[in-house]
Formats: sequence, C-alpha cells, structure tokens
Amino acid sequence: MFRDLVLRTRSIRRFHEATDIPPTTLRGFVDLARQCASTRNAQPLKYVLSTSRDMNARIFPLLSWAGYFKEWGGPEEGERPAGYVILLGDTRISQSFETDAGIAVQTILLAATESGLGGCVVGSVKRETLAAILSLPEHLKILYVMGMGTPKEKVVLEPMPPDGNVRYWRDAEQVHHVPKRGLGEVLVGAFE
Amino acid sequence: MFRDLVLRTRSIRRFHEATDIPPTTLRGFVDLARQCASTRNAQPLKYVLSTSRDMNARIFPLLSWAGYFKEWGGPEEGERPAGYVILLGDTRISQSFETDAGIAVQTILLAATESGLGGCVVGSVKRETLAAILSLPEHLKILYVMGMGTPKEKVVLEPMPPDGNVRYWRDAEQVHHVPKRGLGEVLVGAFE
Repeated sequence: MFRDLVLRTRSIRRFHEATDIPPTTLRGFVDLARQCASTRNAQPLKYVLSTSRDMNARIFPLLSWAGYFKEWGGPEEGERPAGYVILLGDTRISQSFETDAGIAVQTILLAATESGLGGCVVGSVKRETLAAILSLPEHLKILYVMGMGTPKEKVVLEPMPPDGNVRYWRDAEQVHHVPKRGLGEVLVGAFE
Repeated sequence: MFRDLVLRTRSIRRFHEATDIPPTTLRGFVDLARQCASTRNAQPLKYVLSTSRDMNARIFPLLSWAGYFKEWGGPEEGERPAGYVILLGDTRISQSFETDAGIAVQTILLAATESGLGGCVVGSVKRETLAAILSLPEHLKILYVMGMGTPKEKVVLEPMPPDGNVRYWRDAEQVHHVPKRGLGEVLVGAFE
C-alpha cells in the first residue's frame, strides 16, 4: 500500500557501502522521474549517475551531511553511499527547478524504498568542484546530490516536542529520530 | 507496483464533479505529505482543504488551467474539481518552500491515484483574492492549488517530437497527450 511505502521512505545517511547498486536500478529510477508531472511540462531536469567506486570516492567529500549533527562528519568509510543520483537544472530550458526537483527526488526515494534501497537528498554541495569533476557545461546547474545505498540505520518518526524543535537526533542505540508536525498543526483550514 | 502507480499518475483537469471526495480522504493525503522528507526537517508547509461545493465554487474562478490551451477556459461545469488541496508556505518557518512543495504534491498525487482520484497542480492562481476568501494571516503564502476529483479524461504520454515541443495537446477524441523527454536526453552522464 502506498501509505506504507511513504512512511517507510526516510532520509537514510548510513549505508552498507559494500553492497553495490546495479546501475540499471538507478537508471530505472531516473526513467520513472522523467515521466512525472513537470511545471508547464518543461522538464528542465537532467541527471548524472554514479555507481562507480572511483567516482563515488570523488563525490563524497563534496557533500555536507545532517546539518544538525555538528560533530558528525557524515557516514564513515564502509557506511557511505554505494551510488549517487545528481540532479541538474538545465538553464536553457528553465530558470526555476525546485518544484520539479521535489517531485523527482520523492519519486526516486519512494522507488528506492520499494527496491530495498534508501537515500538522502543533500543540498549542501561543493557545486563548483563537482561541476568541474563532472565536466558539466555552463548551462547545467547542480541542484541536489542524492546519496543512495542499502540502509544501515533505523529511522523513526516522532511527534513534534512541545518546544517545536525540528532537529532530528540519534539515541544511544544510534536510532535516528525525526520529529514531525502533527496533522492539527499543518492543516490550518478545512471546508467540508 | 510503484512504477505502475507513477505512470498512472497524470495531471488530470476534467473530473466527475458530482462524485464527492470524502473529506477524510483529503485529510489522509495531507497526513501522508506531512510525514515526508523536508529540507532541514523545517516542515514549513501548511494546508487548507475544501470538499464543500460552496467553497469549491469560490476557488475555481481564481485558477488558470492548462496554459498551453489558450482557447480553453478550464473544465466546464460538471467537470470541475470536487475538492481542493491548497498548499501554503509558512514564512515564519522558512522562506524557501518549492522543493518541499514538490515532494508534497507528488505524494498527494500518487496517493490520489491509488484512491481512484486524480488532480492537477495549479500554479496560476489569483493569490490575493484567494487569501482574502480563506482569511489567511500574512505569514501564510499560497504556493499551489491542487484541483482534485474522479478523473473524467484520459491522459497518455508520448515520446518527445523531433522539434522538442513540450506542449501537451488533445486529439479529436479529447485524449490528452503529454510529450516527455526520453531517458537518453535527461541522463547526461553515468559512471558505472
């Protein structure tokens, strides 16, 4: 059921790095994402994939993980993504990408969950360096880098605490907890 | 299978207007959307729902439908949405909403398909008038209005034509055709 798929789809930041992702799997995710709704059907998103260990090792140091964990430098060796989906915006097609990008990343994350994979959408990226590594032409702008792999962490949702602190946290067992606003808070009106 | 759900999830602009949407169905969609990934987990999205015929009739004239159909004023009476999901951005929480909004609308559209419903994300909205009708406080900004209902049109995907024209079109049988860029066009690099 779709509800179950959505609830199981959490941002995953630690992976079984040695478990390869078949390249066709990531290609399948992009093939799905390209067929989703797009603002004015412009379809300005482009993609670069990596399941190569060499390229993965060059991409990883350009990402900042979990902004709320100031003392965590991101996943350790052995727990890093086994692949990446890099979302690009083609400025020859549009100047506005974010809603399309949201549609695409959610589609890819949901497809990943169904395949036993998981991922995290990273927005804090050393874009200039990555663009150089990928030899991207000027008109392709890096939007997000999705780190993908077989999940090696447990993530659970929590009700928002009374103080409204949205920061996720890890418990002593390394379970990752994510507070979410309740339905009563986000649903501000209903004409029924 | 998730792939099938994604491919069946098309933007729908004509509905069986007389077929009511149970209010709990739309509430369920919002309940799913609120539990999805959110940038920095800030969760700045808020929602207003309408399944009331009176309110629906006030919302409908504020929307522009299908920008590429210059001669079509949107769905006729009897084919209009049976409900609306209005996405708001809470500027007290964030100033940037679009990626979160993309995640939310895709989640809602996919959930709708599974429930036998469909919808269209409308970005061309008379926002000031709608904000006044809804008595929205200043800090809630209207992002999108999703028209929802039981689909009364067939939508099919097409390969992109050689001239690269992204405009959707309707054939003589009123089937709605949507050209999509091929995988070879959107996948600009793969390190495998």
